[in-house]
Amino acid sequence: MAYFENINKIEFEGASSKNPFAFKYYNPEESVGGQTMEEILRFSVAYWHTFTADGTDPFGAGTAIRPWDNLKGMDLAKARVEAAFELFEKLNVPFFAFHDVDIAPEGRTLKETNENQDVILGMIKEYMKTSKTKLLWNTANMFTNPRYVHGAATSPNADVFAYSAAKVKKGLEAAKELGAENYVFWGGREGYETLLNTNMKLEQDNLARFFHMAVDYAKEIGLNVPFLIEPKPKEPTKHQYDFDVATGLAFLQKYDLTDYFKFNIEANHATLAGHTFEHELRTARINGMLGSVDANQGDTLLGWDTDEFPTDIYSNTLAMYEILKNGGLGKGGLNFDAKVRRGSFEADDLFHAHIAGMDAFAIGLKVANKLIEDKVLDSFIEDRYSSYNEGIGLAIVEGRTSFRELENHALQLTEIRNTSGRTERLKAVINQYILETLSSVTA
Amino acid sequence: MAYFENINKIEFEGASSKNPFAFKYYNPEESVGGQTMEEILRFSVAYWHTFTADGTDPFGAGTAIRPWDNLKGMDLAKARVEAAFELFEKLNVPFFAFHDVDIAPEGRTLKETNENQDVILGMIKEYMKTSKTKLLWNTANMFTNPRYVHGAATSPNADVFAYSAAKVKKGLEAAKELGAENYVFWGGREGYETLLNTNMKLEQDNLARFFHMAVDYAKEIGLNVPFLIEPKPKEPTKHQYDFDVATGLAFLQKYDLTDYFKFNIEANHATLAGHTFEHELRTARINGMLGSVDANQGDTLLGWDTDEFPTDIYSNTLAMYEILKNGGLGKGGLNFDAKVRRGSFEADDLFHAHIAGMDAFAIGLKVANKLIEDKVLDSFIEDRYSSYNEGIGLAIVEGRTSFRELENHALQLTEIRNTSGRTERLKAVINQYILETLSSVTA
Amino acid sequence: MAYFENINKIEFEGASSKNPFAFKYYNPEESVGGQTMEEILRFSVAYWHTFTADGTDPFGAGTAIRPWDNLKGMDLAKARVEAAFELFEKLNVPFFAFHDVDIAPEGRTLKETNENQDVILGMIKEYMKTSKTKLLWNTANMFTNPRYVHGAATSPNADVFAYSAAKVKKGLEAAKELGAENYVFWGGREGYETLLNTNMKLEQDNLARFFHMAVDYAKEIGLNVPFLIEPKPKEPTKHQYDFDVATGLAFLQKYDLTDYFKFNIEANHATLAGHTFEHELRTARINGMLGSVDANQGDTLLGWDTDEFPTDIYSNTLAMYEILKNGGLGKGGLNFDAKVRRGSFEADDLFHAHIAGMDAFAIGLKVANKLIEDKVLDSFIEDRYSSYNEGIGLAIVEGRTSFRELENHALQLTEIRNTSGRTERLKAVINQYILETLSSVTA
Amino acid sequence: MAYFENINKIEFEGASSKNPFAFKYYNPEESVGGQTMEEILRFSVAYWHTFTADGTDPFGAGTAIRPWDNLKGMDLAKARVEAAFELFEKLNVPFFAFHDVDIAPEGRTLKETNENQDVILGMIKEYMKTSKTKLLWNTANMFTNPRYVHGAATSPNADVFAYSAAKVKKGLEAAKELGAENYVFWGGREGYETLLNTNMKLEQDNLARFFHMAVDYAKEIGLNVPFLIEPKPKEPTKHQYDFDVATGLAFLQKYDLTDYFKFNIEANHATLAGHTFEHELRTARINGMLGSVDANQGDTLLGWDTDEFPTDIYSNTLAMYEILKNGGLGKGGLNFDAKVRRGSFEADDLFHAHIAGMDAFAIGLKVANKLIEDKVLDSFIEDRYSSYNEGIGLAIVEGRTSFRELENHALQLTEIRNTSGRTERLKAVINQYILETLSSVTA
Repeated sequence: MAYFENINKIEFEGASSKNPFAFKYYNPEESVGGQTMEEILRFSVAYWHTFTADGTDPFGAGTAIRPWDNLKGMDLAKARVEAAFELFEKLNVPFFAFHDVDIAPEGRTLKETNENQDVILGMIKEYMKTSKTKLLWNTANMFTNPRYVHGAATSPNADVFAYSAAKVKKGLEAAKELGAENYVFWGGREGYETLLNTNMKLEQDNLARFFHMAVDYAKEIGLNVPFLIEPKPKEPTKHQYDFDVATGLAFLQKYDLTDYFKFNIEANHATLAGHTFEHELRTARINGMLGSVDANQGDTLLGWDTDEFPTDIYSNTLAMYEILKNGGLGKGGLNFDAKVRRGSFEADDLFHAHIAGMDAFAIGLKVANKLIEDKVLDSFIEDRYSSYNEGIGLAIVEGRTSFRELENHALQLTEIRNTSGRTERLKAVINQYILETLSSVTA
Repeated sequence: MAYFENINKIEFEGASSKNPFAFKYYNPEESVGGQTMEEILRFSVAYWHTFTADGTDPFGAGTAIRPWDNLKGMDLAKARVEAAFELFEKLNVPFFAFHDVDIAPEGRTLKETNENQDVILGMIKEYMKTSKTKLLWNTANMFTNPRYVHGAATSPNADVFAYSAAKVKKGLEAAKELGAENYVFWGGREGYETLLNTNMKLEQDNLARFFHMAVDYAKEIGLNVPFLIEPKPKEPTKHQYDFDVATGLAFLQKYDLTDYFKFNIEANHATLAGHTFEHELRTARINGMLGSVDANQGDTLLGWDTDEFPTDIYSNTLAMYEILKNGGLGKGGLNFDAKVRRGSFEADDLFHAHIAGMDAFAIGLKVANKLIEDKVLDSFIEDRYSSYNEGIGLAIVEGRTSFRELENHALQLTEIRNTSGRTERLKAVINQYILETLSSVTA
Repeated sequence: MAYFENINKIEFEGASSKNPFAFKYYNPEESVGGQTMEEILRFSVAYWHTFTADGTDPFGAGTAIRPWDNLKGMDLAKARVEAAFELFEKLNVPFFAFHDVDIAPEGRTLKETNENQDVILGMIKEYMKTSKTKLLWNTANMFTNPRYVHGAATSPNADVFAYSAAKVKKGLEAAKELGAENYVFWGGREGYETLLNTNMKLEQDNLARFFHMAVDYAKEIGLNVPFLIEPKPKEPTKHQYDFDVATGLAFLQKYDLTDYFKFNIEANHATLAGHTFEHELRTARINGMLGSVDANQGDTLLGWDTDEFPTDIYSNTLAMYEILKNGGLGKGGLNFDAKVRRGSFEADDLFHAHIAGMDAFAIGLKVANKLIEDKVLDSFIEDRYSSYNEGIGLAIVEGRTSFRELENHALQLTEIRNTSGRTERLKAVINQYILETLSSVTA
Repeated sequence: MAYFENINKIEFEGASSKNPFAFKYYNPEESVGGQTMEEILRFSVAYWHTFTADGTDPFGAGTAIRPWDNLKGMDLAKARVEAAFELFEKLNVPFFAFHDVDIAPEGRTLKETNENQDVILGMIKEYMKTSKTKLLWNTANMFTNPRYVHGAATSPNADVFAYSAAKVKKGLEAAKELGAENYVFWGGREGYETLLNTNMKLEQDNLARFFHMAVDYAKEIGLNVPFLIEPKPKEPTKHQYDFDVATGLAFLQKYDLTDYFKFNIEANHATLAGHTFEHELRTARINGMLGSVDANQGDTLLGWDTDEFPTDIYSNTLAMYEILKNGGLGKGGLNFDAKVRRGSFEADDLFHAHIAGMDAFAIGLKVANKLIEDKVLDSFIEDRYSSYNEGIGLAIVEGRTSFRELENHALQLTEIRNTSGRTERLKAVINQYILETLSSVTA
């Protein structure tokens, strides 16, 4: 417990607390809709942002001041594990997530890299024996190293494809070893810079071949967890093949992979694709493909992935609404794929940021739960679509009609009466629920 | 009182009210920071969106169902005035705003148009004698009629310039007659479609000439109110000359117009220009140019002016923060330049929407006021910039130093110590203030 | 021949012509790659933009000055048909396209609307007997009339669904009657304004039911043409279900509709979705779903559908590259879903604009054809992916390997050698081809 | 001459050359409008992109393979100078530009940093004695080092302000020493992350104080060159104070700095601000503030600064049009603030990219010059605004009229006749000029 010395375990102190190192809304033991907050929210710390990143941006060097700044190589890797489990405990989070390269440095050869991995994986496994914090998912970083400059499974270079396969093989083994709940694929370089030099069909076929081999290998080693694709439209590549949930779905359907994959949906990736967070969640949900969530937020006035901690109550409420409607996330969780701003470079900020995000999602959960309990939106929607419960509407949804019959119906209509969609009133209701749900709790 | 028969006067019922036709947060008589809500918020109804618009969009015809749908021409114009004052009273708003063409139809000639104006202006004046609702501002619509196809004061056609001058002359006279608090200029067509056919310098020079003549004429008729430029970056034109506040400021400075003009800042125009609403307010404020506000909101995932009713509590809080820091809006107000969605086509929606916006701005006011009273941000900022209160920092702000001296100072520094900007913690504080300010009120 | 009196038939005069009413690059009889330009390009005039639209925009009334401005109702509809065939002949275009409401006014009842349709369809059929211009496609406008305020096949109102079915039924009959090459669906209102009031699953299920009934009815009446979905991400709705090609593909796969549908891809819709035009064409092409093209261009600095005439040579070249690689468009064509700017309001501009677009696509065709003939990109790409032609690469594409084997391969690699993607050089080559292809022709 | 061994001096070989290492359009000695291409275009190589950058992006490590990869520290710095002058000579460019940190590593102290600078500045000066390549401008990098995390001249920390002053002092001295043509300020961190913690007024006041001290110091040391502000709206900061040209102009006017500053305009910064490149150039030009150009291009479908080599002929033509209309750039130049794509990682790509950019600007120059010589746009525009040459129009531009008189004029108008803006026809003309200007040369 040497890394964040001056910080104690973060406790729930309630909405009126002025202690910046306390939860005001997130009370892990509080029951919401029959489960505890901890059970529903399944928060996860992102190893890369919190222990590996240093605040570098395209125009500036790292600013982060961290207790492990003086270390290097495997010593640094070990210190980060220690610090990580200290932070997990102090924040009381049930999960974490990592890329292979987050936890241990790459060696000069793949063999050496794997050996480094093994050392740290062993250390993590040891820590996990006594920690409550489990592995939400791991993944292979196949975008940072220059070898992936033109892609990993979609590289024009078959050696890179092979190397990537070796990395994911190792990752699947790690998942098995550490009891991961899921395994994630983010194809940061699986896309193109320009169509002028790209065989898009071959690249996508290869990506599918890669996924099928991953499925086969997981079966072989008895790893039975959801595989999650994390859509993102662009950045770093000009165009990424997993643009959004719908694009990913088209791909999985085409290549017969829907049985093995779901989606890990990130708020900031959604907005970069021109969608709201809740749109992507809804799209996945109604297709039975909502796997897990990268809980962050973007800045829609900026055109890149800002990976901010998710403090927007509106967004969190609508996200939790989809998640609750989905019956929860199953083996998925809310992973804070979020980084402190470059200007928030002190170690304290890591805690401020996670507290901000956890509290804001706790708020979202409570508001969403109340909306559902009171059937606020459900009733409105049920009523709005009620014409499909009888007569011609029922015939439509039951597949008992045809264009001829529908035309007959239409010809006999003397008037078509629509009703208002009431957007403004519903928005006012959401505001009222945000303010009232919490005030009734805190009163 | 025949237009909105089934709607009674909207009363404040408090946060727990379930009555959709009641204010939950806006209590006009409640004092916030020493003034009543009504005095500070100075709400205004936009005549065009609420009485003239019908829900037309680029792909669809009007959907609005209004009590005056069966009327035409001057009869329609008169009915709208009656309905307007009924709605003003029922919503209890202190102000309204209009374009000339909103209130009366154009005639076949300018003379006839002016005569139509006179009839309705007289009717409005009569209503205003007994109504509490005053005119926040009026303006001349110089963008709808085909004559403005290439601009008004920036038209390549001198006749159009002259016609526009006549329109604004009439508008200034109307402002005088009705006791308007301000006069507004929105240059919807003052810009260009393509530089290939545009003399940008002549157009901007002409615009300045137009403004100077407007200033002169206002002086001549004894109209002594702020002139307000309303920046917007684009739409309908490809590029509008009043892109944003900074661009407007450059223009006013260059052409020696800063003494007569301030800005009317619209949230949705700010976001179309790539700024937050609060950024534009701040820019105007620190330059002494914050005149009035078009209170609405946009959808940053859509690229056009959606003019939604302002229900976002974050945005409203930060807007009210700037307004309170400005010492209020003076003669300006919060004009709902906002329209009900095309799908919210019933007359009831006009009330739902205004209630939603008024309540959400009342929330923003209360939160902003509490933030200021508690010096939450002020203290943080004061501390953050404290190095300018002494030593070399004080020398800098007092203009008592030079590059030579600063270099000497820098050469002697052994370490430069910055402190975290604490973005995440401040965002958590804002969330807590939003939830707590209101809950303490409602408890 | 009374509508465009002062304009003669547009002839090809070659690149050095200064006659604004002549083609400089489009020579319908010139052979490019074994076919005439006319055969490959299959240009189509969009009835709505050219004969129905008047330059209205969200902030302004129509500006267009047209020879038929004095007419109304069915007289207007008839005059437009006459003018249309005059323009088709003068521009010498092989195709046109229309929505039902473009050609005839809606009546008070569906029956009356259909009767109006029948009159004009008969007139068009008569004209087509002697005209070379054929119908590329027709479609039903299910977005303008207020009844579609909440959607057509995705309306919450079953009556609207039925009415829409009647409209498409009529449209399919018209397609049959006029010998249309395709039938198009653009779901402008098939989407949502807010998820707060939307049953997205039911809406999408209903849309699929609608399409299946359309397929059934086409079979019933012996209409055997491709059905084309035209993706667009947004506008007028906040979100449209046919966001882009990939989203459409996911939908068609899920609902088992891929055998009957292809895509009609619009350049401006592509950019609104965050894609290049060529990306959408490529995506459709490699999935065997490239049906037809709405040839226009957008302004990527504006956030709405500007529907400009396609004058960008780069875009047209890359589009024609995809089309040639597709073996042409089959029954599809290049439909100018493009409108003259509001400021280009004279009838002459209709000709200037079509000439600009036709010439610019002719340029694109010639450049693309030369790129393909010279195997400029093909050779580069073949070389770039050559590692998949042998060894481990071949094993990958032939499905003869596994993660285990690939790991073995990777462990033995001493070095991974990628080669430059050469983006800059390829872009220089494109420039050179644009300038040289045409100069060699004109020299 | 050891760094780019296999590359000879790039020669002009004309449009039909297939040699990738030759100019096809840029012929330095060719006269265009009375000056040689070399004199007009004043190309400059950006030291940072070409000699310092390595292809790092936010998701990946450097990919560049460079002849100096094995060196470190001052040895690396020296090798880069050698390589730079080799490349300058082989590309035959007249100018280069650098940030202080590009040329020499930072030391542990400011003193040491300055000493490193002196060594390399001396070496550069020595090279410049025999090289034709001159310094277009230098600047101080005040954004990479963590000390600038919250800004440089706008930092809340007075020590940082002082340190920044020392850096610019040194930069001005270097400019003097090397005979720079200009001195540039790009305020990458002069802006804010969030208004919640920002005293915007103090920051902007301090920035103005900083600029005034820079002006004073330049005078003191006899450095008499234009100071150039380089606007950029965002990235790395959420908001940068020099958002665009108009914003910079408002700032310079307010703080009485217009006599000393002009603008260095970058294409990609323009598009990030929502403007075309030519818009920013035009805005600067008509305000007499066009100083220099950062010649690159962005990808308007991506939301960040991609700094691509400027290969777009349209953009380059319109840029050169503004530059020629400005009477050239004076002491300014066309600096390739452009980087090879991360996938173009071979040293050859540095040459391919510069050749692509230089050729594409040579094309732009020739087309723009021909457009001006033929008065294509000038004639159209002169005619379009001719109503301001007589009668009421002349009275307007000569300031001899008033709203009263203009109203009289307007009342007497029986008809207002506008003429088409002819956007489509003008675009077709541009296409024809692009293809014909060059083909006539190459024929």
